[in-house]
Amino acid sequence: MKLIFSTLGLLALVAGGVTNAKAQDPLPSWNDGSAKQAILAFVEEVTNKSDPKYVAPEARIATFDQDGTLWVEQPMYTQVMYCLERVPALVEKKPELKNVEPFMTVLSGNREAMAKLSMKDLEKILAATLTGMSVDEFSAEVKKWLANAKHPRYDRLYSELTYQPMQEVLQYLRANGFKTCIVTGGGQDFVREYSEQTYGIPPDQVVGSAGGTKYGYDKDGKPFLTKEPKLLLNDNNAGKPEGIHLMIGRRPYAAFGNSTGDRQMLEYTKAGDGSRLAMLVLHDDAKREYAYGPAQGLPDTKVGAFTQELYDEAKKQGWTVISMKNDWKRIFAFEQ
Amino acid sequence: MKLIFSTLGLLALVAGGVTNAKAQDPLPSWNDGSAKQAILAFVEEVTNKSDPKYVAPEARIATFDQDGTLWVEQPMYTQVMYCLERVPALVEKKPELKNVEPFMTVLSGNREAMAKLSMKDLEKILAATLTGMSVDEFSAEVKKWLANAKHPRYDRLYSELTYQPMQEVLQYLRANGFKTCIVTGGGQDFVREYSEQTYGIPPDQVVGSAGGTKYGYDKDGKPFLTKEPKLLLNDNNAGKPEGIHLMIGRRPYAAFGNSTGDRQMLEYTKAGDGSRLAMLVLHDDAKREYAYGPAQGLPDTKVGAFTQELYDEAKKQGWTVISMKNDWKRIFAFEQ
Repeated sequence: MKLIFSTLGLLALVAGGVTNAKAQDPLPSWNDGSAKQAILAFVEEVTNKSDPKYVAPEARIATFDQDGTLWVEQPMYTQVMYCLERVPALVEKKPELKNVEPFMTVLSGNREAMAKLSMKDLEKILAATLTGMSVDEFSAEVKKWLANAKHPRYDRLYSELTYQPMQEVLQYLRANGFKTCIVTGGGQDFVREYSEQTYGIPPDQVVGSAGGTKYGYDKDGKPFLTKEPKLLLNDNNAGKPEGIHLMIGRRPYAAFGNSTGDRQMLEYTKAGDGSRLAMLVLHDDAKREYAYGPAQGLPDTKVGAFTQELYDEAKKQGWTVISMKNDWKRIFAFEQ
Repeated sequence: MKLIFSTLGLLALVAGGVTNAKAQDPLPSWNDGSAKQAILAFVEEVTNKSDPKYVAPEARIATFDQDGTLWVEQPMYTQVMYCLERVPALVEKKPELKNVEPFMTVLSGNREAMAKLSMKDLEKILAATLTGMSVDEFSAEVKKWLANAKHPRYDRLYSELTYQPMQEVLQYLRANGFKTCIVTGGGQDFVREYSEQTYGIPPDQVVGSAGGTKYGYDKDGKPFLTKEPKLLLNDNNAGKPEGIHLMIGRRPYAAFGNSTGDRQMLEYTKAGDGSRLAMLVLHDDAKREYAYGPAQGLPDTKVGAFTQELYDEAKKQGWTVISMKNDWKRIFAFEQ
């Protein structure tokens, strides 16, 4: 029992630390305001056993969109940057693509021409760079890229461009018994490569647009999975609640997004009984990050649009709009 | 701090209890033998930090087939029993099916005729009773059925017919930091209705054959999901490793099955590096449960076949075959 008691001594120190930390502000990067208050009040309600809105720990699910909600999505989704930058290596393996569009345009490096690529062109590039290799090869390539690729404006690794206020929300919810999940329109396999290290969210809690794989054997009889160009789940718009049902199997109590693609996830969350939290990040801070809507007269965008219709719906339905400019004291961990 | 110390007093009691329990046999329903030893040795290796085969807690994934591995699957899969018993209620709602096969045969109650239904007939019955309703309606129906339906031989609820030795393995692995997951050929939504209560496995850790859902709105504008007759994942054979990648995103360190449908899951598990555990339950105990193979001269079966080829492969690959008759001291919790 001696060992146990010395372990308990350690536990006492830890417990004391936790108690002190709890007395501190769990959301220090948030300015006081209705958004911060909405989060604190929600957690208080659902974790208070004497509150009629108490939620059992196993049912505490919180879902987060990823691009534009947890990290920067401008000027282009990180995964699309990855796919574009993979094209030279792809053409080296398949030289027959060298003089074929849209690969030719990407190889030219002409940014103006690349910006004009159609959605169909982009889909071709995504299919060619995200499928046709083994799951392990893909994993190794993405890891290598993420360890080196830098964002054009901030000149930092993409994993450094997560929003500190949202990191605090993730930690705060987990400290209160929530399972935090990513529900992204981006590729499930891509996001799983960094979710654990970047957000503390393990692969099985990442729901994303997902393709099929095919089981097979190499020449030594060793089995492996190949990524197939077959879409199983388009995890956007109505696909988000459908993906949540498929992968998580429970309705969230809290959902966070930033664009029209998140609308159905928020609707579905709020349609549950008891206390439900629905929040949308509005990018209205061109100085520290980006400003785009087109809601509230902000500039229009092809990437992560937040329409006026979504804004009006949020106000009507009691979803909280987070103003990046006003609600967030700091945006990135590297800021002072 | 007073409250903390009295809490710690309580913790000391709990910790003492845990220590005593640890000194006890974690697998009391297992006879001493190579199967039990394989489990104990595996857990010792992967949790011992000074062992080169140590596995970080976040990577500790164990997958379990469900029918025939965790609970009784004879004389027919529980879910198929559910579907057959749903037919009268279905016909009440859709009287046009009354004189249509295979529903007519099921309504006749003629067990001999029902046993002759083809796989195509069964698929029609499954599609009609598992899809076309809202996710919430389905959930309510399954819960109601499970609370009342009894197994024809044991006259007990299906949830009482789980194998006590496997329940101990689940608990033992979880106590050693493993995430335990079900990977079943059965319907994902069906198994999720009881997995948490029956095995302590939450819905998001259940991978199964999964259909699509469709997001829509009721007349009051409230969103809901409808179960569609569209198969997204056939979680059997090669579909098991594919499903594991899709839903869990990590290769298991331990996998348990009982039939040819589990072969690829075990291959995939063993193809990983370090220490990996692969086990197959052989039903060779007609007295306490059922005896079927056709491996080792056991009677052939349509439900959960364990072929001689699978048996030979297990021996060749170093997978452990669990003999229900010899390795399990008791099979059900209700036995003395």
